[in-house]
Amino acid sequence: MSGLPVVGQKLDLKQYFAGVKPDLLDVEERIKRQAREFDPAILGYIEYALESKGKRIRPALVLLMARATGGIDTTPRAGHANLAVIVEMIHLATLVHDDIMDGATKRRGQPTAVAKWGAELSVLLGDCLFAHALKLCTHFEEVEINRAIADASREVCSGEILQTQRRFDLKLTIPEYLKIISMKTGALFRVSTELSAFINMEKGITEEQRQAARVYGDCLGLAYQIYDDCLDIAGTENSIGKTTGTDLEKGKLTLPLLHVLQQDLGAEKDAIAAMILHGNESDRQKLLQVVLERGGLKYSVRKIQTYLEEAVRALDLLPPGEFREALQGIPSALISHVGNLAK
Amino acid sequence: MSGLPVVGQKLDLKQYFAGVKPDLLDVEERIKRQAREFDPAILGYIEYALESKGKRIRPALVLLMARATGGIDTTPRAGHANLAVIVEMIHLATLVHDDIMDGATKRRGQPTAVAKWGAELSVLLGDCLFAHALKLCTHFEEVEINRAIADASREVCSGEILQTQRRFDLKLTIPEYLKIISMKTGALFRVSTELSAFINMEKGITEEQRQAARVYGDCLGLAYQIYDDCLDIAGTENSIGKTTGTDLEKGKLTLPLLHVLQQDLGAEKDAIAAMILHGNESDRQKLLQVVLERGGLKYSVRKIQTYLEEAVRALDLLPPGEFREALQGIPSALISHVGNLAK
Repeated sequence: MSGLPVVGQKLDLKQYFAGVKPDLLDVEERIKRQAREFDPAILGYIEYALESKGKRIRPALVLLMARATGGIDTTPRAGHANLAVIVEMIHLATLVHDDIMDGATKRRGQPTAVAKWGAELSVLLGDCLFAHALKLCTHFEEVEINRAIADASREVCSGEILQTQRRFDLKLTIPEYLKIISMKTGALFRVSTELSAFINMEKGITEEQRQAARVYGDCLGLAYQIYDDCLDIAGTENSIGKTTGTDLEKGKLTLPLLHVLQQDLGAEKDAIAAMILHGNESDRQKLLQVVLERGGLKYSVRKIQTYLEEAVRALDLLPPGEFREALQGIPSALISHVGNLAK
Repeated sequence: MSGLPVVGQKLDLKQYFAGVKPDLLDVEERIKRQAREFDPAILGYIEYALESKGKRIRPALVLLMARATGGIDTTPRAGHANLAVIVEMIHLATLVHDDIMDGATKRRGQPTAVAKWGAELSVLLGDCLFAHALKLCTHFEEVEINRAIADASREVCSGEILQTQRRFDLKLTIPEYLKIISMKTGALFRVSTELSAFINMEKGITEEQRQAARVYGDCLGLAYQIYDDCLDIAGTENSIGKTTGTDLEKGKLTLPLLHVLQQDLGAEKDAIAAMILHGNESDRQKLLQVVLERGGLKYSVRKIQTYLEEAVRALDLLPPGEFREALQGIPSALISHVGNLAK
């Protein structure tokens, strides 16, 4: 699929993670070490799933937030490193299951678990990663942390169920879409930043600041998901490094299209509905044109920017410094980056 | 598939559960109530999965063990009821995922989740149930309980991976088989009985008695799984109410057959291997004859009985009384019941 080459370059957040680079390496090491906790016979599968060359955004957010709220926990429990490992493992577990559902054969250039070993083993592999993550939670003395993580995990799965359920559903509203992505993507971002600040409450972080950390994660997660959904519509495979147009093909109605569907479409209404419900490749190309002409992408970019601005603002409550700057730099970079999408 | 009608009647354990009947009804009510904790849009799926007309053996074991070790926890946290709900939810989550892998269309006469809603939704549904069970764990103040449950969950999935991995593997040994079923079935039985006793340690249950409760659950779980595996070979659909012969068809090598494979098979060896690896329906019938002739079923029944005797013996360490009697009655009933299998 050719797509519309509106995105010129990939988003690179590495510069913002620079201040926690050694800590991220430590987390990476810890993630790899988890494989050894499993039976030797299944270690290979676990290692493969854990080594997925992801961006490790969630661990980076945990660590940056830790630094911005009083420092990384260096007690033997290593609270922040543990939290970083947990959120990444839950994320990886959901990716393994997502790939089964999407029938995806590659992720970041590597064969997916389902492509290598089939659906049966991959269902179990995801379950194992998930169970292990929840076991790591028990290193925390605070039941509150365990509860928040279990809750977030449940939200992620529930959000995915809602999404699956509402495929090809032309009645899906924008608030419903936002709720779904808040569950499936926002939840893990939220716990990453909120719990990171929570761990530092004994270092003087206030309840208000903890809430600010939560709002930051929430808004960033929402913006990130809408951005990803826009790329699927407006990106090209070359520019973003993965297959585009897959959402529409699978009946996932995302924000740019939902913005169009809520307009008065007059005579075009039935044709658009037909293209969504049983369109072929060329129909989907036409739909993208409709989305562009009717401002669906522009609207989505504005929405992304609004969330990102809220993320930046929320952190004004934290003590100023290098790490607050890095955290605020991420949404700021995204704000100007997504500007290109709407041009 | 016709099978061999060696099992005359179903095993009925209800009489042993009689002493905890009201408590089981309370747990049943609690299980149903969990559905309401989910988003209204997905409540229907959760309800369906939770209402599976299972035997609720694990909750019954939790409650009987509670009664046998000092009584059911009636503090607001309702430790035993909560534990019973958790182990059953984890069990149900694994059933939902198992049914996807087995392509099962019916379970206890009802369409499976995968038959009703497809694999995608069922993967997520299992995940949701699992995440929710682990959230319920956080009602316990004792991190030890959470850890044991997360550990058991991981063992269940790891055991299932090992099993999947070793399908059609003629080199699978009996100790390896026992390890797999100890993980995939023993683990949840073990935590059910051990943690139930653990909750009563403040009522005077000793570390030794806790271990005895663990051994009981472990042995009962192992015996139960071997029994189930034997039924798949020796039962008839009419007598046990589910499809038989499915293990062989899927390449799952279970104890009766493994006993044959470790014998000196001489000239028959290649023919037997061929029937296992790519046999048709009639080959599988022949294999069952070989298993019977070479004592595979008799051997398995002896193994079941050994485990069950160990389960009975372990509980001699508990204070005597009505509930210890009921707990010991379960393996005793199974011992005489499986006697029929080997005749």
